[in-house]
Amino acid sequence: MELVIVRHGESLWNKENKFTGWTDVDLSSKGITEAEQAGEILKNGGYKFDIAYTSYLKRAVRTLNIILNQMDLHWIPVVKSWRLNERHYGALQGLNKSETAKKYGDEQVKLWRRSYDILPPLLTKNDSRCCKYELQYENISEEDMPLGESLEYTVNRVIPYWEERIYPLLKEDKKVIIVAHGNSLRALIKHIENLSNEEILELNIPTGIPLVYKLDKEMNILDKYYLGDQDAILQDIERVKNQSKISG
Amino acid sequence: MELVIVRHGESLWNKENKFTGWTDVDLSSKGITEAEQAGEILKNGGYKFDIAYTSYLKRAVRTLNIILNQMDLHWIPVVKSWRLNERHYGALQGLNKSETAKKYGDEQVKLWRRSYDILPPLLTKNDSRCCKYELQYENISEEDMPLGESLEYTVNRVIPYWEERIYPLLKEDKKVIIVAHGNSLRALIKHIENLSNEEILELNIPTGIPLVYKLDKEMNILDKYYLGDQDAILQDIERVKNQSKISG
Repeated sequence: MELVIVRHGESLWNKENKFTGWTDVDLSSKGITEAEQAGEILKNGGYKFDIAYTSYLKRAVRTLNIILNQMDLHWIPVVKSWRLNERHYGALQGLNKSETAKKYGDEQVKLWRRSYDILPPLLTKNDSRCCKYELQYENISEEDMPLGESLEYTVNRVIPYWEERIYPLLKEDKKVIIVAHGNSLRALIKHIENLSNEEILELNIPTGIPLVYKLDKEMNILDKYYLGDQDAILQDIERVKNQSKISG
Repeated sequence: MELVIVRHGESLWNKENKFTGWTDVDLSSKGITEAEQAGEILKNGGYKFDIAYTSYLKRAVRTLNIILNQMDLHWIPVVKSWRLNERHYGALQGLNKSETAKKYGDEQVKLWRRSYDILPPLLTKNDSRCCKYELQYENISEEDMPLGESLEYTVNRVIPYWEERIYPLLKEDKKVIIVAHGNSLRALIKHIENLSNEEILELNIPTGIPLVYKLDKEMNILDKYYLGDQDAILQDIERVKNQSKISG
């Protein structure tokens, strides 16, 4: 079984150092270039997909569309689900990370960002940032509608979707690409690699670099590698790791 | 019931004056701008869609993706089908229109281009342009696989798809956008407006201009209009009409 995972390219708020979560921010021009490069690398590697999965968020959908366009695979089915959305960052969404660190202290922000099961401050139900006000989330049930998520919560909504929708296709030998987000992909990788709550927090996924898994039918990992210039990728991973160390 | 139809933006071969058909040519930069403008006009008009349909061809898929991105409707389901592809132009695909007119004569080319039921010269089954060599058409049955189509043939594959997949959704009050091609949209409009074989050939659809149909449940047309600057649209329609008059 072959699965390719890609984290969306840089978004406008990555650049502005804001908590994004479910805020539907577009790609930056660097993000567009990253997506084009990911498509080019996959095309040159001879990859083909039968079906593609992504979230409801523009930065992921657009990254996927650019990749498929680049690969001349624009015609394959694309399935979108809010279950692959980024971790919902609650009342932190839209706040600048450094300012938040100044306001709440480094330690508190580190806890919100780097623990497995601690929730961010939640949105109140009538906060205008609440997703019930958005058309695309109209059909999510009240109990599923997040007001803020820990990574644990994200895992709990990503994995059932994987089990019900994506994994059965892999078992039928369908080739699948998933384009999603730093934390929804962490959720997925935690499950695939059977990582502990601590291990998954150490894992940093660079933007726009295709990650290939070769799996047997029992989900044992036969091989796992990033596509592209391996030195540059190591530098990218290091950069993502360091970004997350800067408090806020 | 509300239906919006858009013909894809200008492609690279529109510019080069070549017979395109099922050849998978990309949008020109003008085509990309046309798609962005279509999205902008629809967004400003307050349009929303529940689902989108397009062909397997890049110029249509990409036009649709750009429109949905512009409208912040990137998250809606997109369904792609070869049945919405452009009319297959057989052995004319890839030939320059003026050169073809020189070779076969103006009258012959006019017949191929402007009659309802005359087939273009067909591809032979082992012509490298034949779509059986392309991954996306692998699952089309031998009898459905076109080697060249008249507009009549195009109608015969578009309308069953409309009847089975799209019309039932409209009846359920779903709002639908279809992005397709000059002739697959002619096929559709012939059916919706109940036009004769002659009338449909007189109908010229400008690229990238959203065409809105308001229909009752019995498919009677309550209203029909293009969105945007009406004078500019009339000029566009005239331009498309004149293009088709230039022999070849």
